[in-house]
Amino acid sequence: MREVTVRDLEDLAIGAAILGTGGGGDPFIGKLMAQQAIEEEGPVTLIDAGELDDEALVIPTAGMGAPTVVIEKIPEGLEAVRALRAAERRLGRKADATSPIECGGGNSQIPFVVAARTRLPVVDGDGMGRAFPELQMETFHIYGVPGTPAVLSDERRTLVTIETQDNFMLEWIARGVTIRMGGHALLAEYPMSGADFKRTAVRGTISMGMAIGKAVASARSVGIHPVDAVCAATRDTIYGAGLRLFEGKVVDVERRTREGFAVGHVVLQGLGGCQGSQLLVEFQNENLVARRDGQVMASVPDLICILDSETATAITTERLRYGQRATVIGIPTPEIMRSEAALSVWGPKAFDYDIAFVPLESRFLEYYREQGVPRDKGKYL
Amino acid sequence: MREVTVRDLEDLAIGAAILGTGGGGDPFIGKLMAQQAIEEEGPVTLIDAGELDDEALVIPTAGMGAPTVVIEKIPEGLEAVRALRAAERRLGRKADATSPIECGGGNSQIPFVVAARTRLPVVDGDGMGRAFPELQMETFHIYGVPGTPAVLSDERRTLVTIETQDNFMLEWIARGVTIRMGGHALLAEYPMSGADFKRTAVRGTISMGMAIGKAVASARSVGIHPVDAVCAATRDTIYGAGLRLFEGKVVDVERRTREGFAVGHVVLQGLGGCQGSQLLVEFQNENLVARRDGQVMASVPDLICILDSETATAITTERLRYGQRATVIGIPTPEIMRSEAALSVWGPKAFDYDIAFVPLESRFLEYYREQGVPRDKGKYL
Repeated sequence: MREVTVRDLEDLAIGAAILGTGGGGDPFIGKLMAQQAIEEEGPVTLIDAGELDDEALVIPTAGMGAPTVVIEKIPEGLEAVRALRAAERRLGRKADATSPIECGGGNSQIPFVVAARTRLPVVDGDGMGRAFPELQMETFHIYGVPGTPAVLSDERRTLVTIETQDNFMLEWIARGVTIRMGGHALLAEYPMSGADFKRTAVRGTISMGMAIGKAVASARSVGIHPVDAVCAATRDTIYGAGLRLFEGKVVDVERRTREGFAVGHVVLQGLGGCQGSQLLVEFQNENLVARRDGQVMASVPDLICILDSETATAITTERLRYGQRATVIGIPTPEIMRSEAALSVWGPKAFDYDIAFVPLESRFLEYYREQGVPRDKGKYL
Repeated sequence: MREVTVRDLEDLAIGAAILGTGGGGDPFIGKLMAQQAIEEEGPVTLIDAGELDDEALVIPTAGMGAPTVVIEKIPEGLEAVRALRAAERRLGRKADATSPIECGGGNSQIPFVVAARTRLPVVDGDGMGRAFPELQMETFHIYGVPGTPAVLSDERRTLVTIETQDNFMLEWIARGVTIRMGGHALLAEYPMSGADFKRTAVRGTISMGMAIGKAVASARSVGIHPVDAVCAATRDTIYGAGLRLFEGKVVDVERRTREGFAVGHVVLQGLGGCQGSQLLVEFQNENLVARRDGQVMASVPDLICILDSETATAITTERLRYGQRATVIGIPTPEIMRSEAALSVWGPKAFDYDIAFVPLESRFLEYYREQGVPRDKGKYL
């Protein structure tokens, strides 16, 4: 148990934007919302999943929609609180805590908005340890937690409560409602017991986000390049060390807001050790697959993070533009995310790619073996 | 108060299909659902609005979506019951009665399905005295009743509860959900007090539907043409006598299922006294505007009914096809539907037509004056 302050949210915004792998909603807007709430209401308590009573009621909160929309249609601030209250009404009892459903991007911050306004604690864990575009793409779903009653909420005080036994149906209906709410909505979903949270969540991911952010912020002062600081920050965690996949300049971006998602791709022309190569990254809100000169280097559910080459600031899907100098890193996803059941929901095939999931670390070693490059030269590719 | 039997529903299906002005959902499927429910559960009580306690809770029930979909995606049968029960849960009290929201087409029958299964009475009245395509197109809305909490329900037991202060937003969100439910859904909406029902409903419309059906069924035996029987059946009611607008053969139908609606037009080539003329009828689920050789003969909210020329059976939007012999009649809408507030919601301009609403009766007289045809010759035009 610890207190989270306005200052901690700065670190979290940096770290969670990286874990967001391009999506999870704008980290800047989420941070401002959470900081304002804490300034007005006081600090929020962050608790470990282990501190939850088995019988406690956890109601996770988040935003959903296209990241391209969030930066223009900024939330009013209390949408997620109203969603949580409506879920409580439907369940006939009060929540004991909220949590993220995804610790990536702005969605790492929304629970702090809710927690500050309701004086509930935030549980340190989420349903994916990163960001994913769809509501069934959560460990909660994969390990048997019903996603509903789920409540969507907008700035016009509309409330839409969805009840279904099918978490794919939840996604399908909720996406339709989000589109009609203007392309972005706030929601409460997967209400569950403390026991279920402990059993199904990816734990410690908020702390992880803060730690990554802190590492980036202090990298220069300890004489490390910020990108190396990011790669190192996940080394001794449930993730594993980040790997530099590519360094280059953005030379092409195609991005559309389609059916409630931001979909498209970005092409980087190699710089430094990557001169002469190209990297193609395809995304649906989040980065899905990275191909170097046609060869797959990383795929979901491993994390593909596009970072500013100088500062290691994450460049989110909706902010990609021609000319940016970027370093693309891969972070191995935690083991709980690589089970067969998990891969069936968010492996490459779930996104219609005819690619088998091969762990990032294996692809990385394979690539260097094929290229005949000694391993220690691989650092900058 | 009277008992409604399986036999009464036959009459209602015929009459309500005519009042449906092309829409309201397939009357045959609605009838089968209601008849099955009554066969299994016993007759349903139909009560006058005047019999409602002011404090009673009325929860109207209906189907929504594209008529083109209903005939292929047939309801499972208990969707509307589940919607009503969910509305009761949200409101924290039991319904005392259900009612139609529109007495046209299959939607005149859905409340009987619900009533049979729940043993609630059906109130004799609705929110439009016909059928209209959108949820704010109800006298309930026009005279100040909130449309929510409204609950949509599908055959997969999905429940979606919508809460908003804005009945246009209700339509917008509910339409999006209906599309995602496959193009058709059942719903409970505009829950209201007995006092509000008495104040805002178009009364006696179920009885009206049955009376029209009975008139058609017995026309031959009393020596009247069934189409004349329909025109006569509304004469001494809140509607006014039906007027024959056109007689012809269907020579063109354009119909698409778009954004959850069946939209398009039909063209009739004149026969009999209409030889040499064409009638164009445009529809959005329901018939909206009828033009004879370019001249507007009738428009919403007056009823434009396309009837089989021999039997006077209503031909619904989704059943129109080349070669049908049809007589198009207009029925004046009740006065409660012609107020300025009402016309702003369902007059021609609400459907993006640059046409002023002129009562059908006036247009009819005007047309004959211009044509120089003596009034008594106008009967078959």
